[in-house]
Amino acid sequence: MKKVRIALLGLGNVGKGVWNILQKNGGEIAQRSGYDIEIAKILVRDVNKDRGVKVPKELLTNDFDDIISDDSIEIVVEVMGGIDPTMEYILRSVRKKKNVVTANKMLIATHGKEIFREVEENGVSINFEASVAGGIPVINGINENLAANKIEEIKGIINGTTNYILTKMTQDGMDFDAALQEAQEKGYAEADPTSDVEGFDAAYKLAILAALAFETEVDINNVYKEGITNIKAMDIEYAKEMGYVVKLLAIAKDVDGKLELRVHPTMIPSIHPLANVNDAFNAVFIKGNAVGELMLYGRGAGELPTGSAVVGDIISVLRSEREGSNISLSHYTDKKVSRMEAVEAEYYIRMTLVDKPGVLGRIATKLGENNVSIYSFIQKPVKGDFATVVLVTHKNLEGNVKKALKEICEMDAINKVENVIRIEQ
Amino acid sequence: MKKVRIALLGLGNVGKGVWNILQKNGGEIAQRSGYDIEIAKILVRDVNKDRGVKVPKELLTNDFDDIISDDSIEIVVEVMGGIDPTMEYILRSVRKKKNVVTANKMLIATHGKEIFREVEENGVSINFEASVAGGIPVINGINENLAANKIEEIKGIINGTTNYILTKMTQDGMDFDAALQEAQEKGYAEADPTSDVEGFDAAYKLAILAALAFETEVDINNVYKEGITNIKAMDIEYAKEMGYVVKLLAIAKDVDGKLELRVHPTMIPSIHPLANVNDAFNAVFIKGNAVGELMLYGRGAGELPTGSAVVGDIISVLRSEREGSNISLSHYTDKKVSRMEAVEAEYYIRMTLVDKPGVLGRIATKLGENNVSIYSFIQKPVKGDFATVVLVTHKNLEGNVKKALKEICEMDAINKVENVIRIEQ
Repeated sequence: MKKVRIALLGLGNVGKGVWNILQKNGGEIAQRSGYDIEIAKILVRDVNKDRGVKVPKELLTNDFDDIISDDSIEIVVEVMGGIDPTMEYILRSVRKKKNVVTANKMLIATHGKEIFREVEENGVSINFEASVAGGIPVINGINENLAANKIEEIKGIINGTTNYILTKMTQDGMDFDAALQEAQEKGYAEADPTSDVEGFDAAYKLAILAALAFETEVDINNVYKEGITNIKAMDIEYAKEMGYVVKLLAIAKDVDGKLELRVHPTMIPSIHPLANVNDAFNAVFIKGNAVGELMLYGRGAGELPTGSAVVGDIISVLRSEREGSNISLSHYTDKKVSRMEAVEAEYYIRMTLVDKPGVLGRIATKLGENNVSIYSFIQKPVKGDFATVVLVTHKNLEGNVKKALKEICEMDAINKVENVIRIEQ
Repeated sequence: MKKVRIALLGLGNVGKGVWNILQKNGGEIAQRSGYDIEIAKILVRDVNKDRGVKVPKELLTNDFDDIISDDSIEIVVEVMGGIDPTMEYILRSVRKKKNVVTANKMLIATHGKEIFREVEENGVSINFEASVAGGIPVINGINENLAANKIEEIKGIINGTTNYILTKMTQDGMDFDAALQEAQEKGYAEADPTSDVEGFDAAYKLAILAALAFETEVDINNVYKEGITNIKAMDIEYAKEMGYVVKLLAIAKDVDGKLELRVHPTMIPSIHPLANVNDAFNAVFIKGNAVGELMLYGRGAGELPTGSAVVGDIISVLRSEREGSNISLSHYTDKKVSRMEAVEAEYYIRMTLVDKPGVLGRIATKLGENNVSIYSFIQKPVKGDFATVVLVTHKNLEGNVKKALKEICEMDAINKVENVIRIEQ
């Protein structure tokens, strides 16, 4: 059996997953890949820290030079995260003709282009399946299995934390704060949950998926982001009454050559395959012009699921005997991204107002003046000082909806536009 | 741009899908694969038949020798189906060092071993993603993306016809005959629906998936098959009352090194991801020891979805510069397959009986004598001459359940055991 020596950068959750999978399934992996995989070095900050995993101490090093100067190491597996010093380590590895496997969404989303260019120039490979949706093979799905398709649309539940929170709010009627607290207690949410609940994490992942699916450069700053902190139990309840479920969706669409890139809470029909993706599970729904509708579902995080993707990438490097790099940006374009005002969607709008005769008519008139057509209009029983009105629009330009709502807000009888949630069919 | 010449064997639905995709997405496919793909020859029975697709007549031939003798043809794409003469054509192509892509489930399920051996000996490649679940990348999923895993279990809805019929029975309360007729009218079921409704089609596909997932030879005769013709609207209704949905599942499990291979109607919890796979959609649920639960969902049939998988395979041949074959059976084992009597499941049992005092007690006693423990026991209101009893067992050996039911059938008060449906959680 041939041998290959690899190095791990990092021994956190994902690193431990990789280690454990190679221990547990090493025999099968050797037979499938044709190689005995030896972890030769592991870069850690503190070689003395107890990580709860039985790694021989002589493998640990806190000096990247031990790895980069070892020519017998053919694959560098980066599972430490962050940009600095990760970027430097990956570039140095590539320049020393080492193949790279990484799980780093932030790095690929923000510095992918630069890295891919170096990879191409140096004739090595880079694989990053684990950077999006953990164990779900969505990157290979797009790059390999769907290569016969023009991809038209991606809709993903690609943040497990927010999906767990929204599931609890939906199934148990919890409010956001209680659901967040439970997610934190169960280890699904971090002490500072901003990156998850405000949509940053999903935006990085969406940027990667969109770049691959539409073969274009994606500037992370062009991904619209809106988190779930403003979703109330009441919105979820009203959604249910209308046959919808609220999910944080990451959406990328090619609409006549222009891209929509947006992460926001979304109402989807309760019979949509994504509507039944619950708890911390992830799923990515893809429309291709040949395959039609495809969905990939599974665990988007966790030691072993993410490790499964990393080790899958290592095996894929070993099986490939391709000369030259596995990536080429030469046919990538630079597609324009639509402003949100130019996006078309249906809208759920919840507002509170003083219950006076004629108010509803004036709201409807104002919407009509802005070319916003209404699908349904429900006044809820008055509670406290204000009446609640829930309305759902037909498909309209977001710019028109926003303008109409701004004008409606200026009406005396209106207390507040409490929430606006986009609806996707 | 490099050029590659390929031949199609067959120009039915899938062949037309391949043709249309290469017309529609040819530019993108060329950029992604690095090759301009030219369909050089198409084997058809009748070169004069109108197939509703604009194929230049000079490409058509009814003589396989035109293809096999053309050394410039590097890939043979078999989309004609059946065993004879397909098997011969594929073997001859392989021996002439042509790579093969096929969508032929029956051939791979029954003659895979022989074909793979020739492929290996001749150092070419064979790809057959389209043979199972159309556009859903389940074969590459198992072979590539999940290569880091020991696969523990596969549960698939891999026959669209039966899923359409069961969906109609579930959603509209139709009985089997009416739903079958509707499926036939919509083109989802053939005039002779036997292969679909009796589980043959799903069994072929399961044999392929199980062989790859468990790296073992699978004899198609060892796959247990039970169709959906005995499912009554009533069974589906009772299932719903208990929180279950009835699906035709293809199940492969590795239980302590022995395989269960079975296709049968199955009750699954209505919250299971497979429970919401409706109409003619397919889905494959996979448990791996690293990735956990994964599900791939999409269209399992149709011109373009199946064509998507075939063309994806062609691209994968073009991208790979691997020397030698892409398949090796050297580490395949010959795992034993459990008899159904040795399978453990929960069981839904519906029987009709004469409504006499003491009957229920005697049934319960008989089950107990055979070590079958009961989870629930419901007597339905008497209609006509007989009372209906629905009982659900705990997990039990199928052998014990069958023996108990045989003894119960001999009781005077029993009219008939009307249906027995396995339950999977």
